[in-house]
This record gives sequence, C-alpha cells and structure tokens, in this order.
Amino acid sequence: MRTIKLTIAYDGTDFKGWQIQKNGNTVQAELEAAIEKVTQKHSRAHASGRTDAGVHAKGQVVHFKTASTIPDDKLPLALNAVLPETIAVLSSEEVKGDFHSQYDARKKLYRYCIFPSGERDPFIEKYAWRIPYKLNVSKMKREALVLLGKQDFKAFQAKDKRERSSVRNVYLVDIKKKSPLITIDIEANGFLYNMVRNITGTLVDLGRGYLPEGSMRKIIDSKDRTKAGPTAPAKGLFLINVKY
Amino acid sequence: MRTIKLTIAYDGTDFKGWQIQKNGNTVQAELEAAIEKVTQKHSRAHASGRTDAGVHAKGQVVHFKTASTIPDDKLPLALNAVLPETIAVLSSEEVKGDFHSQYDARKKLYRYCIFPSGERDPFIEKYAWRIPYKLNVSKMKREALVLLGKQDFKAFQAKDKRERSSVRNVYLVDIKKKSPLITIDIEANGFLYNMVRNITGTLVDLGRGYLPEGSMRKIIDSKDRTKAGPTAPAKGLFLINVKY
Repeated sequence: MRTIKLTIAYDGTDFKGWQIQKNGNTVQAELEAAIEKVTQKHSRAHASGRTDAGVHAKGQVVHFKTASTIPDDKLPLALNAVLPETIAVLSSEEVKGDFHSQYDARKKLYRYCIFPSGERDPFIEKYAWRIPYKLNVSKMKREALVLLGKQDFKAFQAKDKRERSSVRNVYLVDIKKKSPLITIDIEANGFLYNMVRNITGTLVDLGRGYLPEGSMRKIIDSKDRTKAGPTAPAKGLFLINVKY
Repeated sequence: MRTIKLTIAYDGTDFKGWQIQKNGNTVQAELEAAIEKVTQKHSRAHASGRTDAGVHAKGQVVHFKTASTIPDDKLPLALNAVLPETIAVLSSEEVKGDFHSQYDARKKLYRYCIFPSGERDPFIEKYAWRIPYKLNVSKMKREALVLLGKQDFKAFQAKDKRERSSVRNVYLVDIKKKSPLITIDIEANGFLYNMVRNITGTLVDLGRGYLPEGSMRKIIDSKDRTKAGPTAPAKGLFLINVKY
C-alpha cells in the first residue's frame, strides 16, 4: 500500500464541514467518492483536522492509503475530473507509510476575513464577516500581540468541546487591511475548537470599542469563556496551510 | 401609488435566474417576497432584463409600484434585513410613475470573467470560466474592435430565441488582464439572448488559436451562429450596470 498526501482547497459554503455525516454533503464524503472512482477501491481520507460547516480551506492536507499505481502527478487531474467544482486537489505526493496528516502536523495557519462595510455585497459576504461599525485596526493589532507565545487559551475554548489541554503555542498573529477586507492570520501548533473564531469575535469587540484597551490580556488570564467576545461566523474562516 | 427604482446585486450561483418559475428559487421570487414583508402588500418587481440561471449581477435595476410610505433611504436596509445573503439592495429611489426598468434602459454593461489557469480554484471558478490554455489577449483585443458600432449580431443570436431584430449598437468593448482574471466588458443599447456568452466563446476560440486573425469580422458578416464559437458558461457573466 502507498500513502498519498493531498493538498486540497474547498469552498465550505455548501458543505456540512469536513467529516462524513449521515445527513448532508461533506468534503470527506466527496473526496472519498472521488478516490474510489479513480482507484476503483474505497480508502479512508484523513484530514489534518475537521473543519466545521461553512469553513473554507485553501490548503487543507489529507492522507489516504491506496494500492493504486496511478502516478502522483496524475492524481490531482484524475481526482479533479470527478470532484465537484467546490473542491480542488492542488497537489499530491507519495509519503512514508507512517505519515499522518493530523498527528504529524506541526503548525497550522488560519485566516479570518472581516468585511468592514455598512453595505452588503453578495460576492464578499459568503467569505467574510461583515461588520457595519468602524473598527480601530491599530487597537486590534496592539491587543493581538498578547496572543503570541505558549499559554493557556481556555478563555477561547468552546464550552461544549473540551480538549485535554487548552495550552497552545501561537507563533504568528498578523492583522492586515487588504481592501475591502481586514484579515487576521493566526499560526499555532494547534487550535482549540472555535479558537480562531472566538479570538476574532473578541478582536472585533475591541476594534469597535465594546472592550477597553488591555482587555485581551485580562481575558486570556481569566481563562473564562464568558469574558471573551462572541464566536465569529464560520463563513469568514479559511484554513490556509498545514506544516509538517 | 409610488414607483420605486432599486439597484440590486446578486450572486446567481444558486438561483434559477431572475424570473419566477414553478420549480426553483429565483431572484424575482425572493425580491417580491421581501417587498411583501416590508410593505405588507404584494408588488410585481420588473427587472431591466431577465438574467439566466447562474448569471450574476452587480447592478441590476428593478422597479415596482407600492402604496407604502416607507422612505426611499430606509428601503435598502429594510429589504436587506429580510433578503437572503445572496441578494443585496444597493440603493433605492422614487421615480416618475411611468418609469420602466426594461423599456427605459438606454445602455447595459456586461462583464465576462475568464480565469486562464491550468489549476482549479474553488473560490474563483464559481465566478469565471476557467480556460486551461494559453490565451493571446492582444489578438482577442484586436479582434474585438470590430464588434463596435451598430450592426447585425445575428451570428451571436441563440437559435431558440429569436428577437424581432438582431441589430444592436455596441458602444464599448474592453478586454483587460486583471490578475488572476481576464475580463471582457461589453456595453450596448441592448443584447440578444446569450450574445455576450456567444461573443466570449468566439473570443476564447480566437485567443487559443482555434480561429485565425480576422475571423471576428467574417463571423459577424456571415450572420451564421454555427460560424461563431461556443456559448461561454453562465457563471462567468455579470450584469454590471444599466443606464437610463
């Protein structure tokens, strides 16, 4: 059996997330169906992590095992020919047999897109959270600095999903004005469930003046989810890349 | 009764076009439902022209009659509050009682988006026609020049839709590289059914070398649909604005 690592992109708008479910279309179901069509055999596809319904990916990493001898460089073309337009295989490579897309991931980079606008735009709003208030981006940048480093992010942990440890190491936080968007890039060794969306909700509360300067430090230290801002909607979140 | 002119934008991906149908979601049905919710009474919404399933609009113009006294400047907010995210009312104004969005239109501007790429991108392909061949954009620009002016565009007229006259006046043809896209803007006093998509298919055939230099002139003169290129897919087409 060969182990194949795929890098894929998908528009999460119409998917019920990555993971196969009984009801509803998922990225995993579509990808496994495509692999089966191309290799003539069913394989389980493992992603670097599940993405929720509505979350997008520009560089999700997936691995699967196959006896198929189809060359690596032909796989993207073959899979793309049978995948829906909303999923694309960007690249494919054969990796060592013990490679695991989830357990071997060292770093992940997520991007959250905010659309600061009083006016709706049907072409942007599918991929961003529209905020009809003025946002103080300099303040958001200053407050975001305290997210860096290894610390307990319990304050941004979803209440219903309890990971064993809520300590994560954040390597990068980069907030940029990329007209017409404001983007928030966060790279870490791993993320708690909804962590990026909860951090974004807090940054927006800071940016629009709901929370005073210095709040981010206090919120992290509180380890209390109720002190942080709301969970930003899924549609603005993109998994950009995974490093191994 | 007041006559209201709305400028609206919509992502046509999930709509079966503008016009109300028995089966399937349409922009007109959504807009009329929203108007009814806001004004408490049903009104017929007339567009400057029907757009087909999958065609988008950045500036479609619609009019309707209403007895509602809700101020013009409040209407976009009120309608947007009940419209799906894929449709946005951009502006609203009261116009003379005899205004008609279709019959009074003097010029329309359409944009066709081409995505020249060997690689798929799920975020671009919903809004563009991906062409995995090299396109000679200079040649496309040269050939497009003969589209200008008042002439018979019968060669670009869909066979199953016969407008009374196939003469139209094209005021502007502008082909631009707007990385990662190539855009084709065409402004005319009116368009035959599928005219922009048929012209685009012909320009792509020229750009990829299927048709020799000078073909556009010959195709127009032939008045023969079978001489022109294929109909480009709906998803790359945008109605940009309508002038009165």
